[in-house]
Amino acid sequence: MIKTRLTEFLNIEHPIISAPMAFAAGGELANAVSRAGGMGLIGGGYGDEEWISTQFNLRSNHAIGCGMITWALAEKPEMLDLILSHNPAAMFLSFADPAPFSAQIKSAGVPLICQVQSLYDTKLAVDAGADIIVAQGAEAGGHGDSRGTLCLVPEVADYLSRNAPEVILCAAGGIGDGRGLAAALMLGAEGVLIGSRFWASTEAMVHKNMHQAAIEKTGDDTIRSSVMDIARHIKWPARFTARVLKNGFTQRWHHDQADLIKNADTEADKWKKAWNEGNVDIANTFVGEVTGLIHDIQPAEVILKNIMDEAEKILTIQRVS
Amino acid sequence: MIKTRLTEFLNIEHPIISAPMAFAAGGELANAVSRAGGMGLIGGGYGDEEWISTQFNLRSNHAIGCGMITWALAEKPEMLDLILSHNPAAMFLSFADPAPFSAQIKSAGVPLICQVQSLYDTKLAVDAGADIIVAQGAEAGGHGDSRGTLCLVPEVADYLSRNAPEVILCAAGGIGDGRGLAAALMLGAEGVLIGSRFWASTEAMVHKNMHQAAIEKTGDDTIRSSVMDIARHIKWPARFTARVLKNGFTQRWHHDQADLIKNADTEADKWKKAWNEGNVDIANTFVGEVTGLIHDIQPAEVILKNIMDEAEKILTIQRVS
Repeated sequence: MIKTRLTEFLNIEHPIISAPMAFAAGGELANAVSRAGGMGLIGGGYGDEEWISTQFNLRSNHAIGCGMITWALAEKPEMLDLILSHNPAAMFLSFADPAPFSAQIKSAGVPLICQVQSLYDTKLAVDAGADIIVAQGAEAGGHGDSRGTLCLVPEVADYLSRNAPEVILCAAGGIGDGRGLAAALMLGAEGVLIGSRFWASTEAMVHKNMHQAAIEKTGDDTIRSSVMDIARHIKWPARFTARVLKNGFTQRWHHDQADLIKNADTEADKWKKAWNEGNVDIANTFVGEVTGLIHDIQPAEVILKNIMDEAEKILTIQRVS
Repeated sequence: MIKTRLTEFLNIEHPIISAPMAFAAGGELANAVSRAGGMGLIGGGYGDEEWISTQFNLRSNHAIGCGMITWALAEKPEMLDLILSHNPAAMFLSFADPAPFSAQIKSAGVPLICQVQSLYDTKLAVDAGADIIVAQGAEAGGHGDSRGTLCLVPEVADYLSRNAPEVILCAAGGIGDGRGLAAALMLGAEGVLIGSRFWASTEAMVHKNMHQAAIEKTGDDTIRSSVMDIARHIKWPARFTARVLKNGFTQRWHHDQADLIKNADTEADKWKKAWNEGNVDIANTFVGEVTGLIHDIQPAEVILKNIMDEAEKILTIQRVS
């Protein structure tokens, strides 16, 4: 058993939160993670009201939370009422200043988890009153920034220890097994947020071809790029790129973004069609560098148990003689 | 005491190697690290014969090794004779296929350390007969590639465990204290290569203004860029950028590299003059994201002792109940 302030605060058995991955993390995955003793989060993403309600309605008798992209919530602030009406076990915000939303979340008695990609973001999250801060490194799948997990986590830990010792720190980005969890604890985190490894679960809403592509590829085969967002006209702030598997689409456009802008509509149509069909050479598979550690698709419960077993084994080995 | 196959193989007390940082890691730093129980490496860099000999001649009675940039060695292969004539305790190669040099190094009975930035590089290093592989993440200061340390290390560990279990793995990039060392051990490394934290030592050959800049800045203030190399006409392969502190020079040119190429000669002169004068707004301070964990300049012996004390303390705490 690994007990930390995170397990105590969220009243969960294991210090593992599943990332609220847009499109992939629905109610079934969130349920499975919470049932296995972690904290499952629905990926509210850009804020599709019907989708989010549908996913919450899949909830069984386990506590699950929900995430939203902060800048998308700023464009649809009414989504917060909707999400809070579902009594989430936690609200997760990432990718902009969470300050405008914290009062409503906290007055609803819902734990506020803020994901940060830099020391700068950390200050904003602390000022907004985050209960839990997730320091996300660039290894992560999907959207993120450029700092690496390994030294972002201790730098954020030092900041919290000086300025807000009551805030609980988790690590994210590149963590997919017990080694990553054990390392995160060494760095000063009290838990981890895991995306890609739960994306590679039977409960995730992912096309089987994308699962297969992730199994076959290594961490070398991923790239951070904006081309998927440029094509789809999703206006992400420039600092946030998305890590995906390299494919024909990134190869064609990553170094030619000016030309992509001119052809965005056509390319977006092709990309979305390919996404629906599971054509992984045109649509991109959203997965982190940890894809190199993923060799199978398993139920979330098995994944979580394996991570815990491995971490506990590593942490029990006495390396100091 | 943390004993691993690395300490055994190199016959050193602590599982810490100092990075062979070009220009900064001279004989004095290498001596100090080896005297403190690690393995100190001279930064042979691009292969300046006189400089390298001068640094080896500073050696006291401790074993020290030497590194060179592999593609630079390929342009000046005679440098290997020179380096081996100094009886290095190890030869460190990074940034190209080490195969052309391994036979000579191994027949001289010198341990071969190969630094890799990807799984692809790892295969080359294993095929070349590396004794030690250092998996370097993008957090690192100076030259490197894009993968993050936290999941490159376990992916390389898995590769070695399947294909070359006799090869010893170290982690590099973002490691500057005992938390980083402890985390690296959890990830499957048996030691670490530390650059920036030893760069911030009294023995490193670094302008005091650059030391001061590193102390003042956070990990957010670094950037990976090619603009220093473009200006100086140093023909690095495109995949390898250098992490430095952002300054006026990177702000002006990082997003305008085509224009920099036109102005390279003038800009290089200014940059080199600023380097010599310690003008940190024009010349760049080569330091990794771990600069956010560096708050003082200390003798290398103190730095190494603090890392070991902290790592041993963390590893001794029983986190599994």
